[in-house]
Order: sequence, then structure tokens, then C-alpha cells
Amino acid sequence: VKRDVDERPIFVPGFGFGAAACGIKASGLPDVAIVACERPATAAATFTRNRFAAAPVTVARERLRANRLQAIVVNSGNANACTGRRGLADAHHACALAARALKVPPGLVAPASTGIIGTPLPRRELELGIAAAAVSIAPDGLWRFARAIMTSDAFPKVSTTTVTVGRQRVMVAAIAKGAGMIAPDLATLLVFLLTDAVIAPAAAKAIVRAVSAEAFNGLSVDGDTSTNDSLFLLASGAAGNPGAKAGSPAARAIERAATEVGVDLARQVAADGEGATKLVTIEVGGAPSPAAARKVARAVGSSTLVKTAFFGGDPNWGRIACAIGASGVPIDPERVTIRLGRAVVFRRGLGVEAGRVSAREAMAGQEITVRIDLGGGSSRGRLITSDLSHDYVEFNSAYTT
Amino acid sequence: VKRDVDERPIFVPGFGFGAAACGIKASGLPDVAIVACERPATAAATFTRNRFAAAPVTVARERLRANRLQAIVVNSGNANACTGRRGLADAHHACALAARALKVPPGLVAPASTGIIGTPLPRRELELGIAAAAVSIAPDGLWRFARAIMTSDAFPKVSTTTVTVGRQRVMVAAIAKGAGMIAPDLATLLVFLLTDAVIAPAAAKAIVRAVSAEAFNGLSVDGDTSTNDSLFLLASGAAGNPGAKAGSPAARAIERAATEVGVDLARQVAADGEGATKLVTIEVGGAPSPAAARKVARAVGSSTLVKTAFFGGDPNWGRIACAIGASGVPIDPERVTIRLGRAVVFRRGLGVEAGRVSAREAMAGQEITVRIDLGGGSSRGRLITSDLSHDYVEFNSAYTT
Repeated sequence: VKRDVDERPIFVPGFGFGAAACGIKASGLPDVAIVACERPATAAATFTRNRFAAAPVTVARERLRANRLQAIVVNSGNANACTGRRGLADAHHACALAARALKVPPGLVAPASTGIIGTPLPRRELELGIAAAAVSIAPDGLWRFARAIMTSDAFPKVSTTTVTVGRQRVMVAAIAKGAGMIAPDLATLLVFLLTDAVIAPAAAKAIVRAVSAEAFNGLSVDGDTSTNDSLFLLASGAAGNPGAKAGSPAARAIERAATEVGVDLARQVAADGEGATKLVTIEVGGAPSPAAARKVARAVGSSTLVKTAFFGGDPNWGRIACAIGASGVPIDPERVTIRLGRAVVFRRGLGVEAGRVSAREAMAGQEITVRIDLGGGSSRGRLITSDLSHDYVEFNSAYTT
Repeated sequence: VKRDVDERPIFVPGFGFGAAACGIKASGLPDVAIVACERPATAAATFTRNRFAAAPVTVARERLRANRLQAIVVNSGNANACTGRRGLADAHHACALAARALKVPPGLVAPASTGIIGTPLPRRELELGIAAAAVSIAPDGLWRFARAIMTSDAFPKVSTTTVTVGRQRVMVAAIAKGAGMIAPDLATLLVFLLTDAVIAPAAAKAIVRAVSAEAFNGLSVDGDTSTNDSLFLLASGAAGNPGAKAGSPAARAIERAATEVGVDLARQVAADGEGATKLVTIEVGGAPSPAAARKVARAVGSSTLVKTAFFGGDPNWGRIACAIGASGVPIDPERVTIRLGRAVVFRRGLGVEAGRVSAREAMAGQEITVRIDLGGGSSRGRLITSDLSHDYVEFNSAYTT
């Protein structure tokens, strides 16, 4: 899926961004990035559940316990995963270097990495890169940050919105790194949610949970995930609004805004799937629970037979029905309805012949929405994914990740 | 994967086989097949767990309650799935037609179907096909039967062995239909295990469970399965051996023989995967339970990133480790060992550089074995699968199944 990115300058009050190229990537492209806050920010995060969690994930988990961070130091080109004790030392070292350069306590810096697995980080390069990135920190550096965290991404991924909290307008910006046919696979997703709002720690945690569930759970974070998936929220508090407490109208408003930019980013990540030609959204309703709805959406959206049918523009509801039935969720086929775009293609256990022509039209576009009503409850779930093309096979068979 | 099939005549005492072409397949190739027994045979079976189980599966499940069958009537080209009441009536009708032609009670005939989903069976064609197949029944028709049940299969799949029970030699033959990148996807698998041994019903059920778990669980039957997956065992009793009771040495010997031919068939099915260029076996040991071992094997063997790496001959242990970690099985990365062929590529949380060259050699062949030791128990599991190639995408994006 092609995408033009309009890189108008973006400022998030309280935050500065730096980036540098230090040679971790063989391409010579930028590979170290820092986001820093003027003052310690309220912080929350969620990480991969992969048992082979990378060293930076282990270190970041520890750092997040106090719910405060002042900077995140990111490198691309090397995941620092499956690197043992050396990897943990390198992740700590990166934080210490960034902390010294920024003159902040090391305990307020968290690391993140993405790239190849199983190779130690090159220390000398990393040291130079962090020093250079720190020097370059500026309020207008958001797009440089977004570019420096890319690996196989074809374009940088940024989304912003504003929301009124009491009488103040606050900003929510989100930056992501991620490509690849994420779910059910293993390309890394890094997400940075930044806001100038004042948010209580409990409210920040609730926002991270909501964005993860609504926007990224279908993709990668918190699901079957790569070694490095991380989603951070930093609130600088520069807006000076009365602190948004958990459950308050202000916190809910910020949560809605964060979910909105999160979903936009998730769509950008799916559209940038390796070899993706179509952006596919699977919406499941009528489920007995949100977990059941997500399970069905994942089963359909991760079936290679369904995904190759999407690539071919084939309105093949049989493969979709089959994936629903194999999901493990107890459903009654007689109550299931499947729509491709607006066309009903399956209802009451039978295909609907009348829907075939408009379903084929719905499959022809760059965006396909599959709507599945299980007829067995009121819960919903969504998965954002892409099709499976020749280029996907080419890309992933020819390159070592 | 190329395969030459040596079609020497195979006889299984007590059984006859018929086949016919009646036009269910647009290609005009044979599409109706019958296996019939001289006398009512001891029967056991296992079927798909897919919630959209096809009409023939529903009917066959009922018929199997008495543990006796005298014939199975199979059609290819149409799965009779998602066909509602009409589909159930057609499945019953097929059994009734076969029963009349064979002069056996309709309750002793089970149906099986494979092919496109959501289109009703053409009744007139089916009637003619069953009549013609019944007329052609002969002891030497096993290969005709094996060919008539094919859909996207490139070659017929048959495996036989003999085993001594007491003082008698008995035969175990297995015939399968199945291609496609079966797990975790949805191509149909039909398996017919035939023996001339005398087996008690409880022993027959135990054999079906064992073969399903050892040979086909990783592939399809009993796992995440298509609408039509079915595995039947028929024992004609023509060998006249003292009846093999459940748990007896004789029953265990037959079970081993049946598992052997089952694994051979599973390998044939995987090798015939759509666009498959490599046969891949994932062997997991050191697991806390057989279910955990199978779960890890499935996670690795169904990852499209792992499968495309196999296609590219890339010894990418990072993707394998990542899939193990994402499997949901609680493992300790420090205790995991990964071998590609004989080469250790990952041990104690780190990649093993010395293994890289011989691992690359191991990836170059037509058969790849991945051995994973979780270091957390004594249970084992296996998945037989294939790589993911350009031809897979081509085949499945261009054709409606």
C-alpha cells in the first residue's frame, strides 16, 4: 500500500527529539533516537509477552515501576535480543550514556531496540550514536526521531490529535515503528505516545491498557508478540491542566484521543506490511466476550488462506467461515453473518449468492473490511492486518531479520 | 517437493474399491469413490473440531456410534459444507444410494466429502457417480480409490505395512487425501486406515486416537481443522486372528503399524503442500506436557516468517526462538536448545556461531528437521509441515477453494 507522508513540523510541548546515524545499520541510515522531557514525565508502558523478551524490555520493565521517565533511548538495526548478560549490560549502558549526556538520573531513562536478533550491540558505535543523538535534541525533531527508529518500514509513522481537557487544549502524538505482517508473526512494534497533559499514574496506566487493547492488540503488543514489542506513554505535564485522575472525564477524553491516534498508527503499520497491497480490517461483533471476539478476528486475519484470497481479490467467504469455525470459540454457524464491505455473503449457515458481485467489488479496493457477526453476544473485537502477497514471500525468504 | 509414486497393486483382504467420474469436478477427473467391506467391519473415526463441520461429518459421526461400518462413500470436488439442510439430506442420500447398490444396510455406510465450500452437491451427477463407482468395486481398486479422492493433490497418497499378530501376518494400509499448507490452515484431510485384522471396538478407538495424535494432529485432524477433516479406521477381520483387545500386545502392535503408515502419509501430505519446496519436521522435546510440546511445534511450524525463511534456506534461529517465545507455553529461554539438522544454533539463551555453516547446509536440502529441546520436562511433540513459497501465494490467490 503506497502512502504519502506530509512531514509538517510537529511540536509536543515539553518534549525534545534527537537522532543520529552511528553505523549499527549497515545502510548508514539513522539508527539511534532519543525522546527527552524537560522534566520527569509521568510514564506507563506495556511490553511483549514473548518469553524471549529482549534485554531492553527487561530493563525498561524495571524502570517503569516508579511510573516516571525523563527519556527513552532507542536504537534500530539491532534488537539486542537473545544476547544474554552482555545484552543486559548494553541496555543498562545505553541508559547510563543517555542519562549522562542529558544530565538526568539514569533511573529515569528507559531503552528500546529493534532489528536483528542474536547479535550483540556494537558498543563503540552505540556510544558515539547516543552522544550525537543527545546533542541534536530539539523540539522540532519528531520526524527525525520517527525516521531513526525505522527498520524495514517504508515510511515513518506519526499521528496527532488535540483534545480539550477542562478549558485547556492538550496534544496527543503517537510515533510508531513497525512493518511486516505483524500478527501472528514477529516483526517488532515500538509505539511512543506523547502528551503535554498532566495525568495521574493510574490514569496513564489505564490509557496504555486501552490503546493496547483497542489499537495494537490485534497487531502485536500484548498478543503473540516479538521479542521487543513495547508501547510507552509519556506525559510531560507542560499543558498545566488540573491533573487527570483515573476514571475522570478528563482522563477518559485523553484516552479516547490516544486510542484514535493509536488506531491510525495501527492502520499505518498494517498498510506498511511487507509486500502488503491491501489494508484489511476484521471487525467481529455479537461475541460472548471481547476476548472471544478478538480470538475470532485473529483466526481470520492470520489465516494464510484468507490473506492470499484477499491478495487475489477473491470474495472467498468459505475460507473465512472455515477460519471462524477453527478459532476455538464456541459459535453456532446458523447465527453467523459475514459481510465483505457492505455485501452480506454468508447468513444462517449458507452462502448468499446475491452478495457475490458487490463483494467482489469490495475486494477490489486497497482497503477491505470484513464484518463478522457471531450472533452470540454483544462484545466486539477488531484486527487490523494486510494481505499476503508474492512480495511478502520474496522479502522474508531473501533477508535475515 | 517432487515425488514418484510406484503404483504396484495393493490388496487389503476383505476390502474392495470403486471409483467413477460423474462431473462434480469440472476437470472431468474421477470424483466419486467407495471403499466397501465383504462383511460389516469394526470401525472407529475422528473428525474435525471445526464449528462449521460439513454435512458428511455430521452424518458420519452418527453412523460411527455403533462402531460398525461396511462402506464409506466419498466425493471430491465439493465439500458439502455450509450447505444447510439440503447438505444433510444430500449426505444421507449418498449413503442410501451406496447402500442400495452394495446391498448393505444404509446405517452401515458413512459419507465423506472434500472440495469447494458453500455449493450444494449436484444430485443427478452424484447418483450416477455412486452407481458407477459401486459397479466398479474390485479388490485391486485401491489406487483408483486414492486418485478419485484427490482435489489439489499432485499425487495419490498410500502407505502400507504388515505386522505379525500372534502367528498371523496382518496388513495395515492407509490412504489419504490432502495438500495445502495444512496447519494452521484449512485444506481438508481425509484419511482411511484399513486392516484385515480382527480388532475389538475399544482397541480400534485407541488406534485412531494414537494415529491422530502422532501423525495427523500436527497436520490437521483434531487441531485447528477444516470443515471436512475425517480419519476412519475399518478392520475387515479377514485375517481371522484372535481378536485384538484394547491394551493387548496385539492391539499395540497394530497401533504401532498404523502410526507408522500414518506418519508416512503425513509426510506425503506435507510434501504435497501447495507450492511446497521443502518438507519440514519440527520435533519438540523437554516439554512439560505433550500438549505443550505440540503447541510449541505448531507455533514454530505455522509462523509465516519461519516458513519463508525455510523457503529461502536461511538458518534463521532468531525467528524460531521468537515463535517459541510467543507460543504461550511457559519456557525458560536459558534452557532452550535449537538444532537445525544436527547443528546446534541456539543454546543457553544465545546463538551458537559455530553451528551456522552446517545449519546452512542442513537448510539447503529438500528435508529440514528442526529439533527444539525446551529443557523443562520429558514430553515430546512433532509437527510435519512445509515451507511457504511464491507458488503457495500464486495458487491460493488465483483459485477459489
